[in-house]
Amino acid sequence: MISAMMQRIREVIVFLFLALFSKAISTKPYSRPNNPLDGASYCLSWRMAVEANNIRAWRTVPTQCLRHIEFYMIRGQYDRDLDLIVDHIISYIDSIAVSDDGLDAWILDVDDTCISNIFYYKGKRYGCDPYDPDGFKTWAHQGGCPAIPAVLRLFNKLIESRFKVFLVTGRNEETLGEATLDNLNNEGFIGYERLILRTVAYKGLSAVVYKSEIRKQLEGEGYRIWGNVGDQWSDLEGDCTGNRTFKLPNPMYFVP
Amino acid sequence: MISAMMQRIREVIVFLFLALFSKAISTKPYSRPNNPLDGASYCLSWRMAVEANNIRAWRTVPTQCLRHIEFYMIRGQYDRDLDLIVDHIISYIDSIAVSDDGLDAWILDVDDTCISNIFYYKGKRYGCDPYDPDGFKTWAHQGGCPAIPAVLRLFNKLIESRFKVFLVTGRNEETLGEATLDNLNNEGFIGYERLILRTVAYKGLSAVVYKSEIRKQLEGEGYRIWGNVGDQWSDLEGDCTGNRTFKLPNPMYFVP
Repeated sequence: MISAMMQRIREVIVFLFLALFSKAISTKPYSRPNNPLDGASYCLSWRMAVEANNIRAWRTVPTQCLRHIEFYMIRGQYDRDLDLIVDHIISYIDSIAVSDDGLDAWILDVDDTCISNIFYYKGKRYGCDPYDPDGFKTWAHQGGCPAIPAVLRLFNKLIESRFKVFLVTGRNEETLGEATLDNLNNEGFIGYERLILRTVAYKGLSAVVYKSEIRKQLEGEGYRIWGNVGDQWSDLEGDCTGNRTFKLPNPMYFVP
Repeated sequence: MISAMMQRIREVIVFLFLALFSKAISTKPYSRPNNPLDGASYCLSWRMAVEANNIRAWRTVPTQCLRHIEFYMIRGQYDRDLDLIVDHIISYIDSIAVSDDGLDAWILDVDDTCISNIFYYKGKRYGCDPYDPDGFKTWAHQGGCPAIPAVLRLFNKLIESRFKVFLVTGRNEETLGEATLDNLNNEGFIGYERLILRTVAYKGLSAVVYKSEIRKQLEGEGYRIWGNVGDQWSDLEGDCTGNRTFKLPNPMYFVP
């Protein structure tokens, strides 16, 4: 009987040791955070400095930040950042008394504002590889950029609130006009006033100069630009920038 | 003897249970990350939106972000953010050919740009409590704000590079002039061209209007403003903002 009891006790002790051991193993993943947004202080500083317009004219994402940017873009934080900004834009929209004259206008950029190039940039190591104009043209020509859900929500709110929405993009009208139009329609961007692409007259101009010129023309037509939303500071700088500008996050590339 | 052995075994079992239990307890902090910058996705989104000037005119830090902001401010990430920005500013400074005419100018804000109010804001729950003008005046009057190391490094680089440095602050000249002057001297800000405080002529004006006016006067005196550094967007907006502006982080308060 004592032997049986000893056997039982031995089993309990072995079980307890195993339990302890497995517990110790299972805590290991927590001791080094497995979320690359955590503790990746340099990359978080870099991303913050990019978004606050302190770092400009950068050509590529720092290679050591590849996993940080990948995690940021596809694991939820990018979408949460967009949702929070759009919530604030919608509060602002609700504060505007829209006139009956049809001249209350809003400007949205297209790439990585209305529709997303994340799938393309995945193949470019989320911006760690340098800009590849031909590769991007081929991608854009396929017309397969998905809508960015938060911005589609904003778009629908603007249409419903009777704003005249102008989509202004640096994409070339001649080569990408049709693909862009179809892409936007297929993704649910329906009811906007005008899609403005870059014509030959604006070839070679910086985004700031080209987009300022377009906004100036719209103001010349009598439109009041209440809001201007883009993922690049060059969408929001220059002349006639609008009553409020909103910078959506984009740590993958910089457009001068 | 059997009884003694049973006693021993019982002790081992109790020890093992305690060990297991304490292990389970000690792993708890890991199952929710103990770094409030981690996983605190709402607060990270909020902070990013504040720094990118998407959220404006906010009165207090969201209460649920108290620990996030505290951790950010005092556990290293704030200092790392500042260091990265200052490194970029210094690269920019090195690209400027400073003239011999003594008119190459630089503008620095004072509060939470040159000198820090973190100790004060600790008592205001890092901005979760609303702005307390009298409390802040009492604190500022003591002249005990420590230098922000990264900005002191920038300041010394500017002096050494022969820029005329103007410190421009919304602090009241009459009540806080002497304390501010002493505070800056004691903290090593020596060799600047002028400390400009708010005189009675600018009382009640917003920071954007007041600081624009000061910069316009400096440009009227012939100065070329190469850079303008502040922790508030209101330091950097308006007229004559300078060739480059740099937004230092400040998630604790908003100055309109």
